[in-house]
Amino acid sequence: MLRTALTEMFGIDHPIVLAPMGGVSGGRLAAAVSNAGGLGLVGGGYGDSGWLSRELSLVKSLTSHPWGVGLITWSADASIVELVLGYRPYAVMLSFGDPEPYGSIVKAAGCRLICQVQDVAGARLALEAGADVIVAQGTEAGGHGAGRSTLPLVPAVVDAVAPTPVLAAGGIADGRGLAAALMLGAQGVLVGTRFYASEEALGHPHAKRKLVEAHGEDTCRTTAFDVVRKLAWPEPYNGRALCNGFVKRWRGREDELAAQVDIQQHVYASAVQAADHDVAVVWAGEGVDLIDGIEPAGDIVQRLAAEAADRLGWAARLA
Amino acid sequence: MLRTALTEMFGIDHPIVLAPMGGVSGGRLAAAVSNAGGLGLVGGGYGDSGWLSRELSLVKSLTSHPWGVGLITWSADASIVELVLGYRPYAVMLSFGDPEPYGSIVKAAGCRLICQVQDVAGARLALEAGADVIVAQGTEAGGHGAGRSTLPLVPAVVDAVAPTPVLAAGGIADGRGLAAALMLGAQGVLVGTRFYASEEALGHPHAKRKLVEAHGEDTCRTTAFDVVRKLAWPEPYNGRALCNGFVKRWRGREDELAAQVDIQQHVYASAVQAADHDVAVVWAGEGVDLIDGIEPAGDIVQRLAAEAADRLGWAARLA
Repeated sequence: MLRTALTEMFGIDHPIVLAPMGGVSGGRLAAAVSNAGGLGLVGGGYGDSGWLSRELSLVKSLTSHPWGVGLITWSADASIVELVLGYRPYAVMLSFGDPEPYGSIVKAAGCRLICQVQDVAGARLALEAGADVIVAQGTEAGGHGAGRSTLPLVPAVVDAVAPTPVLAAGGIADGRGLAAALMLGAQGVLVGTRFYASEEALGHPHAKRKLVEAHGEDTCRTTAFDVVRKLAWPEPYNGRALCNGFVKRWRGREDELAAQVDIQQHVYASAVQAADHDVAVVWAGEGVDLIDGIEPAGDIVQRLAAEAADRLGWAARLA
Repeated sequence: MLRTALTEMFGIDHPIVLAPMGGVSGGRLAAAVSNAGGLGLVGGGYGDSGWLSRELSLVKSLTSHPWGVGLITWSADASIVELVLGYRPYAVMLSFGDPEPYGSIVKAAGCRLICQVQDVAGARLALEAGADVIVAQGTEAGGHGAGRSTLPLVPAVVDAVAPTPVLAAGGIADGRGLAAALMLGAQGVLVGTRFYASEEALGHPHAKRKLVEAHGEDTCRTTAFDVVRKLAWPEPYNGRALCNGFVKRWRGREDELAAQVDIQQHVYASAVQAADHDVAVVWAGEGVDLIDGIEPAGDIVQRLAAEAADRLGWAARLA
């Protein structure tokens, strides 16, 4: 057990939070992380109410431990926030955009508010919105994010929002990363890609296998998958994914892709259907070097916690 | 005292190495870091033999502790390597390019070889060249580098080259970063920007003041300063600097800058002469958020070591 402000706040065993990956962090994965002593967050994605209702019912049925939901702030609307709060999550995480007005609605419901930010200015906004926990997300994270790197961003955010607890996100896939995050002043970590390569994650087995095989250098940040899906992500966000054939084809030609998106979106959708991951996106963080296999999510939680505790115990002998 | 494989190898007190910043890490700064128990490296830059001879004489006259020199591999030639080895440094660091053939020459002279790399493939090349120490440099570092981030890169390099000692570079400017690097499996850190904002650093006081005032978000990676100086940096390298008026003016228009470089280089050189840092480069890493003042380099070494030891001692109580 690593006790931090995060574990105290939620009454959980390990300062490890599942990133609410859209289409990947379903109810089964979130429950598995929570049952293992972490905090599982269901990925609300772009607010498909049918999907959310199903997965939130599932997580409630599978765990009696704290769990939560993550929403994409700029894409959310009041009805989705109300739907989510109706399931009485222990926490709602808002990412990508000004947390107001949804932050206040979450707080008024008696739910803990987690805000994910990509820079120090965003952290100050989150603090004003009443965030109970602030996630400082580095550019090495898989999926959407921005440009700052985790290692220097975390202490800068910690200093800016103290004593509000900060979690580190981006590039953390083993116990060394968790131990390092705690040394930076974080009270825990948000982990995505490592849990994507778990048995309980939604997502195609072929995509998970790609994560096991990939190296950090095989990932890159791109807007191509947003353009082809007609998703209007605002500046400065883009996403880190495996740099597959689709990214290589359209890199630097995103305007051209946008101009012919009515054709290309069908080509892309067919590739998704066929699980052709040389075209279809596999979101992936730089931490993929540290992923060796597809495992039960609970085993991942336990191993990260044990490795970190081991490192931290050894740290004292260094000093 | 934090004892690691690095401190044992050189018989030094603290696992803190001064990055060999061209034009900034002169003999006086390197000696100050070494005298405080770290390892000072003089920045060889683009191999100006007059400058190097003066600064290497200076560092030898100012310290009896281990010190070294850093060279830009692609820009170096055999005569500069021989000149450097003639001063009998304890270590030579090679960065940016295949370390051979200079790596073998350094080793044959009985000098320790440090190789700085930006990805795992580079780390394997460094190992083949006989590197005694490998620096894993993240994209958050000031000055030249590449795209991977420190936090996930360091453990991937540690795993790839074990048991060769690895240092973390990029984004480390306080004791939290040093403690985090050790948790990631590094045996020490290479620190640049924090020492640029020191009394002993070469470089204009106005540039140092800019570092104290800047935030991580004010830095960006660019090739504009290389283009205007007609420096033929190979792919994939570019440099992180304060994102000043010059960068903003030429961003995305580097080809246009190259086309009129014969004019622009004079404009740029005049700005350097005038210490106009809205045009002239100030290399800076993302860790600038953690820099509050211009201090003696020895104080920086002592504080980083003390803060890290404090953190690491506290770590044991977490676990």
